[in-house]
Amino acid sequence: MQRTDYPATGAWHAGLSVGRRQFIALGDRAVALDAGATLREVTIAYETWGTLNSDASNAVLICHAWTGDSHVAGAAGEGHPTPGWWEGIVGPGLAIDTNEWFVVCSNVLGGCQGTTGPASLHPDDGTPYGSRFPVITVRDMVRTQVRLADVLGVSRWHAVVGGSMGGMQALEWAITYPARVGALVAIGTCLQSTAQQIAWGAIGRRAIRMDPKWRGGDYYDAAIGDGPWQGLAVARMVAQVTFRSDNVFTDRFGRDLADADAENSGIGLWDKFEVERYLDHHGDRLVRRFDTNSYLLIGKAMDLHDVARGRGGLAQAIRRVTARTLAIGISSDILYPTYQQRQIRDLIAANGVAAEYVEVDSPHGHDAFLIDTAQVGEPLQRFLQQG
Amino acid sequence: MQRTDYPATGAWHAGLSVGRRQFIALGDRAVALDAGATLREVTIAYETWGTLNSDASNAVLICHAWTGDSHVAGAAGEGHPTPGWWEGIVGPGLAIDTNEWFVVCSNVLGGCQGTTGPASLHPDDGTPYGSRFPVITVRDMVRTQVRLADVLGVSRWHAVVGGSMGGMQALEWAITYPARVGALVAIGTCLQSTAQQIAWGAIGRRAIRMDPKWRGGDYYDAAIGDGPWQGLAVARMVAQVTFRSDNVFTDRFGRDLADADAENSGIGLWDKFEVERYLDHHGDRLVRRFDTNSYLLIGKAMDLHDVARGRGGLAQAIRRVTARTLAIGISSDILYPTYQQRQIRDLIAANGVAAEYVEVDSPHGHDAFLIDTAQVGEPLQRFLQQG
Repeated sequence: MQRTDYPATGAWHAGLSVGRRQFIALGDRAVALDAGATLREVTIAYETWGTLNSDASNAVLICHAWTGDSHVAGAAGEGHPTPGWWEGIVGPGLAIDTNEWFVVCSNVLGGCQGTTGPASLHPDDGTPYGSRFPVITVRDMVRTQVRLADVLGVSRWHAVVGGSMGGMQALEWAITYPARVGALVAIGTCLQSTAQQIAWGAIGRRAIRMDPKWRGGDYYDAAIGDGPWQGLAVARMVAQVTFRSDNVFTDRFGRDLADADAENSGIGLWDKFEVERYLDHHGDRLVRRFDTNSYLLIGKAMDLHDVARGRGGLAQAIRRVTARTLAIGISSDILYPTYQQRQIRDLIAANGVAAEYVEVDSPHGHDAFLIDTAQVGEPLQRFLQQG
Repeated sequence: MQRTDYPATGAWHAGLSVGRRQFIALGDRAVALDAGATLREVTIAYETWGTLNSDASNAVLICHAWTGDSHVAGAAGEGHPTPGWWEGIVGPGLAIDTNEWFVVCSNVLGGCQGTTGPASLHPDDGTPYGSRFPVITVRDMVRTQVRLADVLGVSRWHAVVGGSMGGMQALEWAITYPARVGALVAIGTCLQSTAQQIAWGAIGRRAIRMDPKWRGGDYYDAAIGDGPWQGLAVARMVAQVTFRSDNVFTDRFGRDLADADAENSGIGLWDKFEVERYLDHHGDRLVRRFDTNSYLLIGKAMDLHDVARGRGGLAQAIRRVTARTLAIGISSDILYPTYQQRQIRDLIAANGVAAEYVEVDSPHGHDAFLIDTAQVGEPLQRFLQQG
């Protein structure tokens, strides 16, 4: 029953590797989740770069964003449907210098690139979880990463680094496990998802639910090409617009038509503008590499992100942070506006913890943290060296 | 076969009225459209306020936005599913003073509030147009309004006024029929829809197309409650977020849950945040009063909006404008940013035509033109009096 084009993480064993990916299996050490459920037989997929030093003091954890995975750097290939998503940042001599740091990145819980998620096989019956997979939170992702840190022998990260949802994880690390985080880098992210951010997420959720091929989440027996990919593509289109900016869309696409030869000069209802073709392309590309249920659950985790939840408020939560902090904002980010990263700096600094804010001046919107790697890398490199 | 809850405009006759709505029937005087098609037996629904003076020099045309209609002012009631959408602006003693001006507003071509649209009955067979309804443009809407002006005996409008898509119509009036427009008021609108604006529209289109109940546009035989309303609701959600602002959403909804009593503290996949409930509410409210095909076609018309098309470029098009111009922008508008209204002012003023720009300082985003009527009304009233 298992689809071969979905990652069957349950079938992988600890010690096995696919491409650069390695795996650990938690076995009966169940993961207790915020939503009240527990997950057994969890597998964590991860990659490492560089070498852990003798006192395990040079480990840097990178946390990935929504549709990212453990493949921070390296070519596409077996086990890696896409090239590294932070090639310009992580590598020998780069901002996160793998000659100096032991760099770790794991696929998040609920994901579909090796770590247990809704497409994984349920240990009870060997068929995909589908609708049985519980809601997860960013804190649940971090709880799972703690298990990995323990296995790797990293009791304290030199730094935890992330952009977007990766930054949410980094913040939760610094708040939940202050003794295990020496430094925090939070890029284009926030302490609490806002109503507008939730609104964008809600549109994507409703689009996926509307797709009759989603079937409540139990679609893994569908023939290839017959899954809930219309819904996923629409959800992705929403995200893709919020990830970029008005200026860049105008410069890149303007009002160009995708098919300039159209008989009716593009005045057909389904004739596409170039920007539509671009969005369709991104949607179609995502559906080939990403599981719809993972997209749905990880999106929900972001909407649920609130470092204050259950901690007596925002100030109380931030008071736990001891990690020196670098918050990076992007001038044109419409999804995570810069006031959110300045707030991270302000609240942490208010407790006497070293915290600085750097703004990347870029027209590329939220995605600039993946695009303008030179501007992101410069303060990041300097900050890591300071420790 | 005709659904009684869709407006059967084809069945209405000239001279008939429903509530405040009046109708004219163009009969065999077909409307030739930009897309190449022609429409016969077109009905135009409109309302008027005030009295046309003896030399017909006091007529003001108001053009409505996407889901608006002719009902600018007045209570909800028969023929008027919603109260007037510009109550604070239009009336005796208000900014557009109906004691002074003869005010006209007509439902746009392709709409569903009395003017011929996709839910109307095709004259050939008496069943709804559905998928047979042609693509329309803002210019086609204006062409239809010209017929109405002729019938009303208005050879020249004192002013043509509109916000959002209404502003697009006002601009097309001033460019296509300069001799018939004395003054132009363009609020929260643009000369050419941008790639980002098209992107938001494209998401809505794709959401509607994905709804299996849309059936390619031929759904008018569906039972009540069984139409393509999921798709329409998702499309509307996208628009609704772009119509407002981050700040207002935060102030109004924050991270509140719609159902605070939820057992799991709101951590269920389909538990709603308050902002989701709000968006669902707006979507559900729209589907009760608006036809999905009209929404689709009018949205496409906005994406096709480009005053430069077929006119040798933007400068050439603007050179036709002789109407003195008031362009109004809204400080927090993320959908039609203020640079677009400043561009209207700049390009028209560059030709020596009187043009001014006023910025409404409001947190409410694009919808401020409907909300902050005091701020919009003040410059509008002054401008109308100047003529």
